[in-house]
Amino acid sequence: MNLLERSILEQTIEAIRPIDAEWIAAAERHQLELTKPPGSLGRLEEIANRCAAIRETLAPTANRPRIVVFAADHGVCAEGVSAYPQEVTAQMVANYLRGGAAINALARAGDIELLVVDVGVLAPLVPDKIPGLDGLISRRAAASTRNFCQEPAMTEAEMHAALATGIELAAEAAAGCDLLGFGEMGIGNTTAASAITAALTGEPVENVVGRGTGVDDECLARKRRAVERGLALHAGRMQSALGILRCVGGLEIAAMCGFCLGAAAHRVPVVTDGFIATAAAAVAVRLCPAAAGYLFAAHQSVEPGHARLLAAIGQEPLLNLGMRLGEGTGAALAMGIVQAAIAAFTQMATFAGAGVSNR
Amino acid sequence: MNLLERSILEQTIEAIRPIDAEWIAAAERHQLELTKPPGSLGRLEEIANRCAAIRETLAPTANRPRIVVFAADHGVCAEGVSAYPQEVTAQMVANYLRGGAAINALARAGDIELLVVDVGVLAPLVPDKIPGLDGLISRRAAASTRNFCQEPAMTEAEMHAALATGIELAAEAAAGCDLLGFGEMGIGNTTAASAITAALTGEPVENVVGRGTGVDDECLARKRRAVERGLALHAGRMQSALGILRCVGGLEIAAMCGFCLGAAAHRVPVVTDGFIATAAAAVAVRLCPAAAGYLFAAHQSVEPGHARLLAAIGQEPLLNLGMRLGEGTGAALAMGIVQAAIAAFTQMATFAGAGVSNR
Repeated sequence: MNLLERSILEQTIEAIRPIDAEWIAAAERHQLELTKPPGSLGRLEEIANRCAAIRETLAPTANRPRIVVFAADHGVCAEGVSAYPQEVTAQMVANYLRGGAAINALARAGDIELLVVDVGVLAPLVPDKIPGLDGLISRRAAASTRNFCQEPAMTEAEMHAALATGIELAAEAAAGCDLLGFGEMGIGNTTAASAITAALTGEPVENVVGRGTGVDDECLARKRRAVERGLALHAGRMQSALGILRCVGGLEIAAMCGFCLGAAAHRVPVVTDGFIATAAAAVAVRLCPAAAGYLFAAHQSVEPGHARLLAAIGQEPLLNLGMRLGEGTGAALAMGIVQAAIAAFTQMATFAGAGVSNR
Repeated sequence: MNLLERSILEQTIEAIRPIDAEWIAAAERHQLELTKPPGSLGRLEEIANRCAAIRETLAPTANRPRIVVFAADHGVCAEGVSAYPQEVTAQMVANYLRGGAAINALARAGDIELLVVDVGVLAPLVPDKIPGLDGLISRRAAASTRNFCQEPAMTEAEMHAALATGIELAAEAAAGCDLLGFGEMGIGNTTAASAITAALTGEPVENVVGRGTGVDDECLARKRRAVERGLALHAGRMQSALGILRCVGGLEIAAMCGFCLGAAAHRVPVVTDGFIATAAAAVAVRLCPAAAGYLFAAHQSVEPGHARLLAAIGQEPLLNLGMRLGEGTGAALAMGIVQAAIAAFTQMATFAGAGVSNR
């Protein structure tokens, strides 16, 4: 095991401070001065207040947003848990790099910088064979996870390498960006996220396994059985959040978990995406509860486990648009809401300044 | 009464065609080609499909969005129905023109053009006394409505003038814009919207009167009484949507109703805002049910009548962020969602084009 990578995780967690209630109170006072009835911007006010507390300023910015998409493959695909063949992970990574996926369109629409990271796609992508693949960030911690129905998904070393990748990408992003988001690609990863959700929340398996990309009844039954087998096989190793992540998680899930923690350590607001990204965020919050203050839950997906997972980490989603794509697509939409909240908070006139009568 | 203005309304309604089911079907087929699991973008797909049908193209655009804010005063303020003094309407109009209100910040954040129209603010704004007021569009149909507890809020002529103003502003916008939104300012106008809602839906008054800008219990009781008195006084004149609009509506509500109809007549997608804007949209839909196909409901506000009104016109709100400000602030946020939906629909690669394996 790489002791340096383990130490990076520990140092990152130690660096995370709870957001400051004094700053929240100062932001709330500022809101009362702005030309609107108190509370009338609803959750936009709560978002802006939290961003002010995160950045420790009444003039937070969100002009340089970035989404990082982490991709990896899943050994549990051997159990027949997905409607799509496993090579789609690599094909979709190529699609991202050529700008043809949903996340590309939404990131362009929202003026959001997009980075794509290979944390463990099965077949390494060969840049010189695929035009446009130069943009890929290669940080392969392994070539796919193992099948968690037979053995732990990752070794300790693989998991810590993936966590460190996420932490490093958050540190790099924090140097230039003031709003972060993340997403994922990995055929089979709703199965991993379901297993994490069951293990973290204690929910029965049938409540947390959904149709993912759209599996049929037989495939859904295989997903449930796979999750049940994984939970049974690793029961003795899953007393800790890291144990759960290692046994039934994914390389991209570990990287997203590290990304969450890194964003919190660097005091940058970070927007989660859907079910799988939230599974990563939930592991991060279990490792460091103070990280929750830096998180914004983008949306509630139609995956049945998602609402339970969000509730377990005390997050209320900003959007509920019936989405279930991943890739950071929910994060891209929600980042626009966060930017709007900050714009209102920092740009609005005060009652006194605008000569508007208060109540 | 101005026969020309009545005729403008009739011509506009006659010009509205239902959106074409063939175009919806064509858009749904196109969605299946795009590199995502079928249906995985949820309501973004429904939005894009409807925009394609509205524009009758598989390449709809939403690059030139505009929000029009209609402002007017309300005679029913004499009943003590608002937490703010009536002069705030004019003061907030000045605030919009100077760029200091929430809608200014959100419009800037979303790159949305903003127009402000005086349809009947009590004291006419004097441009040369207020720097920045040059931007005001003055289309005063009256100086405030009348107190609907004592007489109809508008004369036929005033109402038709305000409707025509909205229709004209939609026609102007349709010439240069491909996505429209609207909002309002008018102290006292949640009272008018509540009366419209009760009259249109048959809901009991206590279900549709809320705290508006944040009134206390006594003021809330006065609002309820005012709505009850208005409904009782005008019962014989409110068999039609126009009768309801004229007796208990508002000049800005009539203008927004006209704007909705005008947008539909010119086949431009149009995004409503909160409770008051939705009251205007509901009158438009009662006047012309086919107009509903062109509408997108931005959000569900915390006003208790809003959800009932949305349900009555078959609209499901895109956002639910606990907002209750008006001004077009909900529309501004939702227009970003519509733009994202169109971006995904028009920019994504197909399975065949991107070499991604389908199921």
